[in-house]
Amino acid sequence: MRGSVRILVRSEGGFDFEEIGAYPSLDPNMPDGAPIGPYGAPAFQSANPPDDDPTWSKISRDKLAQRARQLLQWPTQPLPEGFTHEIPLDVSNLPTQSLTPREQGIVTQDATGLARSIRIGNYSAVEVIKAFIHVAAISQQLTNCLTEVFFEEGIKRAEELDKYLSETGKVIGPLHGVPVTIKDHIKVKDHDTSTGYIAWANKSVAKEDAVAVKILRDAGAILFVKTANPQTLLSLETNNNIFGRTRNPYNRALSSGGSSGGEGALISMHGSPMGIGTDIGGSIRIPAAHCGLYGLKGSVGRIPHAGLLGSHDGMDAIIGALGPLATSARDLSLFCRVMLQSEPWLIEPPLLQIPWKQELAEGNGIPEKLSIAILWDDGVVKPHPPILNSLRHTRDALINAGHDVIDWVPVDHQEAWDLILKLYFLDGGEEYRDILKDDPPVPQTQWILNQVPNNGKPFSVAEIFKLNLAREAFRLKVAKHWNATADRTSTGRQVDAILSAVAPTLAPPHDTTRWWGYTSYWNLVDYPAVVFPVGRFSAPGFNIADSSEYLAYLPRNEQEDFIQMQWEPEVYNNAPISLQLIGRRLNEEKLLGVLHKVEGALCHD
Amino acid sequence: MRGSVRILVRSEGGFDFEEIGAYPSLDPNMPDGAPIGPYGAPAFQSANPPDDDPTWSKISRDKLAQRARQLLQWPTQPLPEGFTHEIPLDVSNLPTQSLTPREQGIVTQDATGLARSIRIGNYSAVEVIKAFIHVAAISQQLTNCLTEVFFEEGIKRAEELDKYLSETGKVIGPLHGVPVTIKDHIKVKDHDTSTGYIAWANKSVAKEDAVAVKILRDAGAILFVKTANPQTLLSLETNNNIFGRTRNPYNRALSSGGSSGGEGALISMHGSPMGIGTDIGGSIRIPAAHCGLYGLKGSVGRIPHAGLLGSHDGMDAIIGALGPLATSARDLSLFCRVMLQSEPWLIEPPLLQIPWKQELAEGNGIPEKLSIAILWDDGVVKPHPPILNSLRHTRDALINAGHDVIDWVPVDHQEAWDLILKLYFLDGGEEYRDILKDDPPVPQTQWILNQVPNNGKPFSVAEIFKLNLAREAFRLKVAKHWNATADRTSTGRQVDAILSAVAPTLAPPHDTTRWWGYTSYWNLVDYPAVVFPVGRFSAPGFNIADSSEYLAYLPRNEQEDFIQMQWEPEVYNNAPISLQLIGRRLNEEKLLGVLHKVEGALCHD
Repeated sequence: MRGSVRILVRSEGGFDFEEIGAYPSLDPNMPDGAPIGPYGAPAFQSANPPDDDPTWSKISRDKLAQRARQLLQWPTQPLPEGFTHEIPLDVSNLPTQSLTPREQGIVTQDATGLARSIRIGNYSAVEVIKAFIHVAAISQQLTNCLTEVFFEEGIKRAEELDKYLSETGKVIGPLHGVPVTIKDHIKVKDHDTSTGYIAWANKSVAKEDAVAVKILRDAGAILFVKTANPQTLLSLETNNNIFGRTRNPYNRALSSGGSSGGEGALISMHGSPMGIGTDIGGSIRIPAAHCGLYGLKGSVGRIPHAGLLGSHDGMDAIIGALGPLATSARDLSLFCRVMLQSEPWLIEPPLLQIPWKQELAEGNGIPEKLSIAILWDDGVVKPHPPILNSLRHTRDALINAGHDVIDWVPVDHQEAWDLILKLYFLDGGEEYRDILKDDPPVPQTQWILNQVPNNGKPFSVAEIFKLNLAREAFRLKVAKHWNATADRTSTGRQVDAILSAVAPTLAPPHDTTRWWGYTSYWNLVDYPAVVFPVGRFSAPGFNIADSSEYLAYLPRNEQEDFIQMQWEPEVYNNAPISLQLIGRRLNEEKLLGVLHKVEGALCHD
Repeated sequence: MRGSVRILVRSEGGFDFEEIGAYPSLDPNMPDGAPIGPYGAPAFQSANPPDDDPTWSKISRDKLAQRARQLLQWPTQPLPEGFTHEIPLDVSNLPTQSLTPREQGIVTQDATGLARSIRIGNYSAVEVIKAFIHVAAISQQLTNCLTEVFFEEGIKRAEELDKYLSETGKVIGPLHGVPVTIKDHIKVKDHDTSTGYIAWANKSVAKEDAVAVKILRDAGAILFVKTANPQTLLSLETNNNIFGRTRNPYNRALSSGGSSGGEGALISMHGSPMGIGTDIGGSIRIPAAHCGLYGLKGSVGRIPHAGLLGSHDGMDAIIGALGPLATSARDLSLFCRVMLQSEPWLIEPPLLQIPWKQELAEGNGIPEKLSIAILWDDGVVKPHPPILNSLRHTRDALINAGHDVIDWVPVDHQEAWDLILKLYFLDGGEEYRDILKDDPPVPQTQWILNQVPNNGKPFSVAEIFKLNLAREAFRLKVAKHWNATADRTSTGRQVDAILSAVAPTLAPPHDTTRWWGYTSYWNLVDYPAVVFPVGRFSAPGFNIADSSEYLAYLPRNEQEDFIQMQWEPEVYNNAPISLQLIGRRLNEEKLLGVLHKVEGALCHD
């Protein structure tokens, strides 16, 4: 496999490679729609590497070959009819096309449904994992979403679980036989944790599972792949020099989102029913949104977070959250329940001993009449027209269902960004620069590194204390703002949640993400936020008047100018449309309960 | 008053001053038992200040005069018979001696009892506050425990509350009419927050109440004094250049403890039924222990903590906790209930939304048979004989009551100290050195500053991240150690609490505190800890054999050598003996529930 640039195509009874020549070498700004290499290797991998091929490129080829070898052990799944290296933009349905109806029935279920089906004997764990393996292998080829591949481990575990169930009549736990996928930087025992860093490739085989992974295993979940994340993890797209770029299954010219982009792409193609990502600025919510999935970022300390590799280990001025991406809202709750039932605070000291209130998450105890505040525009970058339309549509549905809707007046989103950027870069970017010495920054890395504050110098201890105080002052300001909504609701209560865009755009063309303010804001204040899909964008059907109105608007700043210029319906064709609900800190259950009611309002719309 | 050094003595019908000459100037190491100045001004205040009197001394005289003027407005309370400037070592009963029986009945009640008595009309709020004012004024004179004095405010508020109750038949809140005292560095609207720093004296009048103070007021509590804390707050004794030293009422040659030493001294003399302190290394627990009180340090994030003045604002690598000192265990629970009933997390973002479980705190839901682990010796400094005897006695009582007792094997207390010291001094002590430029370090400040790590240089960002990781690794180590106790208990459960000394000594002679490891350890791991009194030490009755055995022991290190050398029964005569129970993080209610059962076992002993 080494150095060979071929594409996987269907052959009689299985997979086969077809040589398709050399790609133009090293061009991180390759045009959208450029062909991808074997199993999604980046287009800029040279077929015949020159003698002066840089070290990072050699390491990448080695990792890609490892992955390809793993995938080649499973050449039994036929690709869909008509599949060639001429890959269409929308590949979302390709991986399941060649499945039997029974297999389709498996992979289109959510985790909750699968757990039940396996428990009552409708499916064996082995047939479930095999169906997902089939889809995951094809999904990888179409979007480049996987990193570590260990199908055999998954099948072996499925066999054990089937045996256990048949012998004891009992499931091993609430996720008995359910496949769950893991973002690359989360440790899975015996597998590499390269995390998108050339420097860590092949040097970071985990000696033990991350806490969340261990809990999943104990609950009966089956692990079989790890999924792509970007270089530095501090990116809302997914691209790195080891595995290359992950693409959006609904439109390969668009980003899958990041940093949990491998999960987004894989789950949306039904290559996994549920995955775990992490989010310190939007990294669960953005891929969930761009790939049409559900994703939950809880408050810090609620969901296990120990056992991750990443830069700035030990940084606690701003902390990420681990959480689920899934195809249903109830799976988000299932995930949290499994995590907290295990009393993880006994083995991960930063976790809060706050048991999961499942009833509340299912909507019991949520007020009949909700008060929802809508954030239409964060004051920095107005969302693109399809997103505004979806907000309007949702508002109407809420009102029709008898709920109370007010406007959320945005509080200083630019200030929040300037502050969180400093918290991300307390060391002035030193650690990133160091680890990237022999690992050229991919475009989105370069974009964020261009914004490093403090002239790239580390902050002093006294400055860090001041930044912490600024963060707390900001949190207080937002809390008081929320408290004050009680004066404006018809219920007399504070609003139950904020409804907002997830980003100013739908899934953007690769390397064009420019504004995190709709997601990173809620990391700064540490409020839980959940993303849910509300539709798919169809360019042909789009009302040109909405575009004109938006384009006539005078942008308030550079980012907004860039993002406004970017608006062109055709570019975003077929992209999922998603929205975000935000709750008060540590009110994850209430947030899901509110989502339950909001989706109810949309259903009866 | 300015510059005058006199002592307050009883005169016909009130107070009067008697000139007692000049004290030796500036000697922070003044011998124990040295006379105190007016209302407890430090002995080293010169009566006739020289022309080159340093600025800090002028500021101190000014603050002392302010306090004296406040106190002089209340000269109606006669001092007890026979009271002169020859103050005995044990002054604990003096302040209440001249009270009427009815007044004695008031000031010896705990806050829970007082709240009930006022609610049902047994006492008016005005007579309650007046009784406490009487005692507080005398307590101040004997131990130098007060800073800001505002009796008139307290009486005015009491009048309002009496009016409200008589007009509405309702109390304003659960603390209606109950006096509560406030440690100096906690903001009380319109009063100075000098916090033991010359630099802040008269420059830190609070514009608003700290969150906890606001909640107390809303609950009906009456504020009337603030209480002494030491220079830097980072001290387990109480001494500063503004107000001087606070003494232990049971033996004035001994320390009241610190940093909430004013509270300890005042409450133990019945000058207040309840007070609030703060604790980042033992500062609630040590004065509670040395003064024979109950004191609770909860986990960080449980009890409101916003609105304090202190150094290192914005430091969050290690965070202190605000909490109550009181004369009963049930008052600790009352305090927490009042705090959390107000939903303070809505206005103080770092607080955790974990409502107070009162039932559990009262012992309901606590296992019938407890498993308790005893920490006999932390491996660094063995406790003095009376403390070991109390631990043995408590163990026997627990076993007699049918509970399960195992040994707690200490985990690296010296390492914990070395680590928390770094976290205290992330800036290498810069901020302390800066603020103390014109404020000579008192002896305990000098002692801790001598230990500043990193050669007095600030740590770098990368080093801070590593320290945070070390802290988390330490917390994990202790959590696992606790989890593993399940293998050793007869109940098969993990232990419910750890029973331990609070310090290696009883209240020590002034300026001799040398080891914080029995308290600061639980700040490092963020476990809740409660201190409770178990007796009073009587030197004449002490068994000499216990002393001999202890003194024959070969000390393991310098601190232990110092503390062993210090042991002499006469020195500690009449000092309270207290112990500490420690629970798992965020299990404050369970900890109090366990204390309830432990005290039950001791009662039926």
